Amino acid sequence: MQRHFDEELVQLKDKLFKMGLIVEEAIQKAVESLMKRDTKLAEEIIQGDQRINILEIEIDEFGHELIALRQPTAVDLRFITMALKINSDLERAGDQAVNIAENAVTLNREIPLKTHLEIPKMAELATKMLKDSLDSFVERDAVQAKAICEQDDELDDLKDRIYSDLQQAMKKQSIEVPQAVSLIMVAHNLERIGDLATNIAEDVIYVAKGIDIRHHITERRE
Amino acid sequence: MQRHFDEELVQLKDKLFKMGLIVEEAIQKAVESLMKRDTKLAEEIIQGDQRINILEIEIDEFGHELIALRQPTAVDLRFITMALKINSDLERAGDQAVNIAENAVTLNREIPLKTHLEIPKMAELATKMLKDSLDSFVERDAVQAKAICEQDDELDDLKDRIYSDLQQAMKKQSIEVPQAVSLIMVAHNLERIGDLATNIAEDVIYVAKGIDIRHHITERRE
Repeated sequence: MQRHFDEELVQLKDKLFKMGLIVEEAIQKAVESLMKRDTKLAEEIIQGDQRINILEIEIDEFGHELIALRQPTAVDLRFITMALKINSDLERAGDQAVNIAENAVTLNREIPLKTHLEIPKMAELATKMLKDSLDSFVERDAVQAKAICEQDDELDDLKDRIYSDLQQAMKKQSIEVPQAVSLIMVAHNLERIGDLATNIAEDVIYVAKGIDIRHHITERRE
Repeated sequence: MQRHFDEELVQLKDKLFKMGLIVEEAIQKAVESLMKRDTKLAEEIIQGDQRINILEIEIDEFGHELIALRQPTAVDLRFITMALKINSDLERAGDQAVNIAENAVTLNREIPLKTHLEIPKMAELATKMLKDSLDSFVERDAVQAKAICEQDDELDDLKDRIYSDLQQAMKKQSIEVPQAVSLIMVAHNLERIGDLATNIAEDVIYVAKGIDIRHHITERRE
């Protein structure tokens, strides 16, 4: 029974990693559709979101089944409820990829921009943070989780630089206002993905501390 | 034992309502601090977020305790895990109130703007949606939940109008670009609150459907 449950927890973890991979790919391709002005690719991302939504429901049902049938211990219960929360965060990161793709469709209709600023750099960092946050959850690695929270400041700095560059460009009228606003929204979407990764990482840190405290109380009681 | 558990579920619901009230107040006051150029009030909102974070942890712990100790049925389990998810969404809505307050601090430093557009209208609708989404969850009212999803379109329309008004104002140079971008971000923050309310409402609809299906299967089996 316990071995079977352990296998189910591994299954839950695997499903979550699969979800993570699909979402990371959606983010990368959404930014690619913007950089390469590939509207067909952008539309694929928008349509592909349905797959992410279905996977979210599947993982959600599986997690609830595990709690109801296996009556997990406090530590396993926390693992499963965190997996459910991460599942929901990944789905929302997928929504951000859709937002980026929608902005790409709009921007690709206009004349090409000279530069897309540091958006690819932001995208790379945001997807790395998301991947690392999942790893830190599975490995219960509070140190890695803490590093993610620090990377979030780096991501915010990149976003601030993009904002200020676009503001300058609008002032000098070297970019049309609607285009600049669309690019600001893309930077904002990438920042949101970083926030979702940070939410996950903060939970990992909190639980790591929480278990330590509980462990300490248990020891004193014995 | 069952009566005790029922009381605990009511307690969980009450705690969530308390959290909802505090967050709604934070959103309203954040917008007020912008409209009345009240930087002191904005700073109170920023500092008050700590209280919301502590309340989130308290509710999270309480929900986990209930699952671990009471081994709830499928329906009660779904109620508790949804409460945990809503708890996390409310905390994020509180973060949006902080973002609005931060933008208010920045904007209040500048010369007064002629108009703040339809931002108060957006704020009113977004907080109403959040309140209604909590009600629909507790009442398991899928009809009310559906209405919230429709209001989200209304909120998006308001945001689009604000965006386009600000874009026009930037073009005519009747507003400085950094100020316009700050106001765009406030509109975006309010839209995010509407999204969080919609997430809650969508879960209510999904669970209502899910329970119907399960109920139907149970009936067939009997």
